[in-house]
Amino acid sequence: MNRVPSNKMALESTTSNKRETVCIFGTGDFGRALAHKLIQCGYAVVFGSRSTQLSSLIPKDAEVFSHAEAAQKASIIIIAIQRQHYNFLSPLAENLHGKVLVDISNNLKINQYPESNAEYLAHIVPGAKIVKAFNTVSAWALQTGIVDASRQVFVCGNDTEAKQMVMDIVRSLCLSPLDQGALSAAREIENYPLQLFPMWKFPIFLSLVLTTFFFFYCLILDVIYPYVNDNKDFSFFIAISIANQICPILALILLSLVYLPGVLAATIQLYRGTKYCRFPDWLDKWMLCRKQLGLVALAFASLHVLYTLVTPIRSFIRWRISGQTISQALNNKTEELDMTNAWLSDSYLALGILGFFLFILLGITSLPSVSNSVNWREFRFVQSNLGYLTLVFCTAHTLVYGGKWFLSPSSYRWYLPNAYMLSLIVPCIVLVVKFVLIFPCLDKPLTRIRQGWERKPQYSE
Amino acid sequence: MNRVPSNKMALESTTSNKRETVCIFGTGDFGRALAHKLIQCGYAVVFGSRSTQLSSLIPKDAEVFSHAEAAQKASIIIIAIQRQHYNFLSPLAENLHGKVLVDISNNLKINQYPESNAEYLAHIVPGAKIVKAFNTVSAWALQTGIVDASRQVFVCGNDTEAKQMVMDIVRSLCLSPLDQGALSAAREIENYPLQLFPMWKFPIFLSLVLTTFFFFYCLILDVIYPYVNDNKDFSFFIAISIANQICPILALILLSLVYLPGVLAATIQLYRGTKYCRFPDWLDKWMLCRKQLGLVALAFASLHVLYTLVTPIRSFIRWRISGQTISQALNNKTEELDMTNAWLSDSYLALGILGFFLFILLGITSLPSVSNSVNWREFRFVQSNLGYLTLVFCTAHTLVYGGKWFLSPSSYRWYLPNAYMLSLIVPCIVLVVKFVLIFPCLDKPLTRIRQGWERKPQYSE
Amino acid sequence: MNRVPSNKMALESTTSNKRETVCIFGTGDFGRALAHKLIQCGYAVVFGSRSTQLSSLIPKDAEVFSHAEAAQKASIIIIAIQRQHYNFLSPLAENLHGKVLVDISNNLKINQYPESNAEYLAHIVPGAKIVKAFNTVSAWALQTGIVDASRQVFVCGNDTEAKQMVMDIVRSLCLSPLDQGALSAAREIENYPLQLFPMWKFPIFLSLVLTTFFFFYCLILDVIYPYVNDNKDFSFFIAISIANQICPILALILLSLVYLPGVLAATIQLYRGTKYCRFPDWLDKWMLCRKQLGLVALAFASLHVLYTLVTPIRSFIRWRISGQTISQALNNKTEELDMTNAWLSDSYLALGILGFFLFILLGITSLPSVSNSVNWREFRFVQSNLGYLTLVFCTAHTLVYGGKWFLSPSSYRWYLPNAYMLSLIVPCIVLVVKFVLIFPCLDKPLTRIRQGWERKPQYSE
Repeated sequence: MNRVPSNKMALESTTSNKRETVCIFGTGDFGRALAHKLIQCGYAVVFGSRSTQLSSLIPKDAEVFSHAEAAQKASIIIIAIQRQHYNFLSPLAENLHGKVLVDISNNLKINQYPESNAEYLAHIVPGAKIVKAFNTVSAWALQTGIVDASRQVFVCGNDTEAKQMVMDIVRSLCLSPLDQGALSAAREIENYPLQLFPMWKFPIFLSLVLTTFFFFYCLILDVIYPYVNDNKDFSFFIAISIANQICPILALILLSLVYLPGVLAATIQLYRGTKYCRFPDWLDKWMLCRKQLGLVALAFASLHVLYTLVTPIRSFIRWRISGQTISQALNNKTEELDMTNAWLSDSYLALGILGFFLFILLGITSLPSVSNSVNWREFRFVQSNLGYLTLVFCTAHTLVYGGKWFLSPSSYRWYLPNAYMLSLIVPCIVLVVKFVLIFPCLDKPLTRIRQGWERKPQYSE
Repeated sequence: MNRVPSNKMALESTTSNKRETVCIFGTGDFGRALAHKLIQCGYAVVFGSRSTQLSSLIPKDAEVFSHAEAAQKASIIIIAIQRQHYNFLSPLAENLHGKVLVDISNNLKINQYPESNAEYLAHIVPGAKIVKAFNTVSAWALQTGIVDASRQVFVCGNDTEAKQMVMDIVRSLCLSPLDQGALSAAREIENYPLQLFPMWKFPIFLSLVLTTFFFFYCLILDVIYPYVNDNKDFSFFIAISIANQICPILALILLSLVYLPGVLAATIQLYRGTKYCRFPDWLDKWMLCRKQLGLVALAFASLHVLYTLVTPIRSFIRWRISGQTISQALNNKTEELDMTNAWLSDSYLALGILGFFLFILLGITSLPSVSNSVNWREFRFVQSNLGYLTLVFCTAHTLVYGGKWFLSPSSYRWYLPNAYMLSLIVPCIVLVVKFVLIFPCLDKPLTRIRQGWERKPQYSE
Repeated sequence: MNRVPSNKMALESTTSNKRETVCIFGTGDFGRALAHKLIQCGYAVVFGSRSTQLSSLIPKDAEVFSHAEAAQKASIIIIAIQRQHYNFLSPLAENLHGKVLVDISNNLKINQYPESNAEYLAHIVPGAKIVKAFNTVSAWALQTGIVDASRQVFVCGNDTEAKQMVMDIVRSLCLSPLDQGALSAAREIENYPLQLFPMWKFPIFLSLVLTTFFFFYCLILDVIYPYVNDNKDFSFFIAISIANQICPILALILLSLVYLPGVLAATIQLYRGTKYCRFPDWLDKWMLCRKQLGLVALAFASLHVLYTLVTPIRSFIRWRISGQTISQALNNKTEELDMTNAWLSDSYLALGILGFFLFILLGITSLPSVSNSVNWREFRFVQSNLGYLTLVFCTAHTLVYGGKWFLSPSSYRWYLPNAYMLSLIVPCIVLVVKFVLIFPCLDKPLTRIRQGWERKPQYSE
């Protein structure tokens, strides 16, 4: 983090040989912030404005001219004006001929207009070289110099040289330019700052649906059933007991959904005998949001750990345990240690701890800066091998936890299986199919297919 | 991370076409380390030194000359000499005319000299182009090639071309140059490596003051009061019980102090009817260290969670619970489950868990690499919406926890309110003002003001 | 993260002025993926292939020629062919004279061939300028545009200009080039993607050995001893009780091993009276993997925390506590609170919590993106001062935990000391030596030695 606050930085006109002059059309917030930063980095700045009177808000080293005059003074013109005012540029078309126009505009909604703002600008000023840039940067970030969010500046344009000039400016402002190709990419770039976690939408939607389902399922079994059958009020179970059933169930299901598409893809490749066929669209999309699915699963797993660890502090649990102890004391008997119980209890706790520990490791390696410092072999090792190990531990944790109740009829209230039994379906399927795929008779052809071999070759070099 | 250890890397003179020659004045630690790295990256290096005898410590591919001779052989001269020896350069002024001199020196104290070392150098050798660089890099990091700390090299200078040359060298050494503007920025750059968490000073100082206050407050209520009144010795409360009161109190107060300046700023903007007036200085500073305040709050919250979770392991708690159980057993009665109690206990635990979970999420998104991969809309969504939700959960957690004691006179020992009641003041104020600000009659003008609208316009484009 | 999926990005031939033409030999997976990406970024691409028929898999904007023809059309030729087929290039030597050949090949094993692939290529086509690059990038990452692992591209070569051309291409593909020097570095670069956490091998091996030793040690004391002496079956201790002894022991030993080499190095420097002598090789290697040792220690500490926090949920612990309570109730007596016990229990818990908290802080600051945003002074402050404080807290935690048992004969079963006593040896040595080194009579000369002073100077400027 650049902690030298920029407002204290040297803003001097004594810089002996200036960089080139940059022209900015529009003296709004963003135009002024950009001018300030550009001057700081050694550029000369001229403003093009309707009223050429000097405002106190404009950096003192910048000059203000009419649009036509200002355009003459620089080869790069930054259009810090809203799209609806672009029309006023058409009379200036001649002055702007051959200039590099930088479109920095954003919209208010995704796909607000039929064409992107940058393409619209190219349509209005056909002689200029349009480059899209800076739309992901906030005026506030430029002003304060504190860049907590991204320093990335997406740049696109049809003229490579113009793009290069803009990317050089971006670089000298200590931001990271990212070349996104031709101007037609402007649409994507303009939509980018309007996105709100697009990759997270499906995982969060899915977990909301599953949460709702399991909430009512557990409510029926744990609150309504005892109320109807025994007239006991366990409504306070909603706060922790039911939440602590939903969390592990969702964590396990979502974790297994991370590995299901890989298993499906392998099966499809084996069946087709080639890797050169596109997967169905839903599978592609699913594979792209595996990381997010895994992180949502980790969030549920963490909540499960917290909910579980507070168990002995809950007044209900204290009341129940002291009740049991008192009744034993009153009956004047001391129970023997049930060895099976001790083994089961310790095993499922140990399996859960190890599973959660590996899960956290997976989460840490998916942090951008960590995953950026490993090579592909290491990344695959962690995400695939450690990932499956996590799934095995967590599934085993659930199996051992519920082991003794599977065959007990008392766990089928109203003929419904316990909720955690439902959670075991997907992970068990994934693990069984993966186990089958490991056998050499399937693993060998699959490896060859992934290296480019085809059962019925359609393409040969 | 570049894990190819540089000392095993090719250090060959066979590189067919060398980059330019770089001259280094001074054969000390840093000079030698830099020479080593420069040769590795294809530069030719000559040393300027008083004694031209070859030392075994100097990289074998480098040549050593007298200062004047060495200066002739390169256009860039790195001054790896301490400031107090700069005088010897004045006789060389003619040889150094027009050369790029790179000042890499650091001081021992912040603002040790009236002018920065680089400006002092410019004063001694007026004909040269001075560039400040490399002072944030350690010789050790250059030697081992293991760069655990920053790769950032702050560069400043009045001559843009000279600066560009130095930045190119920085880049070829696999470091990231950051242009900081004119040479007058050298002062900031020279102070930078002497800083010790400058942004953290206020949050840590504040939390120390608050910790001390609440420590003695709790000591009086929980240790001295029972000792004076009931002659009971609870001095061991210091280790955990009191710590576990201080931590949540500080977490809540500091978290609310993160959101207080935003609420204040909104109120000021509404009152003034414009956003084009500077906030008072203390408010600006406060807003700049919000992230650090939040992270200190998170640290206290984490400690609170750990302290709470070990509760059932503490021998005092075990003794108290078993004492209660035994006395019930001896009185031959079993308590009924107190439903209100069960609800309250489970609710405040659940609220605390959810609040802490959101708090951890906030902490993760403030990691540089994570915050770098979200756009502004997402960053603001997380830090503002999720942040307020965290504050609501944590405040509710504290309210529910203490709910039943608010009106009980036994909780006012020596007429002093319980400590957690004091902690509720600031968060409640923040939440109430924020709640008021959400109403459309205030939210609408505020939004317009933030978009640039002014009640009494002083400036128009 | 660039979340604009590249397959939706503009892949247009309308880009008005193209960048230079790049030739790719070989139409395999990687060649095609690279071509796709290059075209996207504005390059013209020609393929050199044996069969010049257009395949549907080749990007439509690329042209396919014979090898000789394709080579003529570009100055940069990317050799996307496996090493064993390099021979076919010797007849083309004339066509390739003076061209930049980019070797992107990888091997299947570390040090598979006597010379690196790039040097072998230089041997076959002596007239060309060979540059090694792109071997760390996966075809899949180029295709999908989702770069979860590293964006770093290691580049090396003897011709600086050729290297620069390749690095420019790397940069325009939005990857980060890292200059690794002369072509002889190709060996390291080719081994890099085959590495699997090389820095982690020693710490993990060491912790496996220690885990095995302490597992059997604890097994003998806690399971076999009671079985032999009292015929009691505590085999279920393996799952949690023994694991929770091993974890803290390993965490403490490994943490102290992080600080032992620093203490050794200081002693050696003091003894030798100079810092200009190389340390023994094992010490150098040890110092380079301190970060990894510390993180493994943190992993064990985290497991210890989880294992400890589930204690009150274990059915064995519940059984034991309720047994104690019942027997007290039946004997009709209530125990007094043992103040010493309360103090000891609360102190070791508090020390453990604070130690673990500092340990987590150390772990967070070792995240690449965090350590990258601090300066050297801050980095050293955290890793050295906070690190020693962590070690002090954790050692004190263990000492207080076991304090009362040190002199009790019952803790020496079969004359063996308790396992945690063994774990205290190394940390206590480190802390004692460090404490001695802090004394001014040793600290002053050490500081001077580290600033370059020598007791018997062998080298003078």
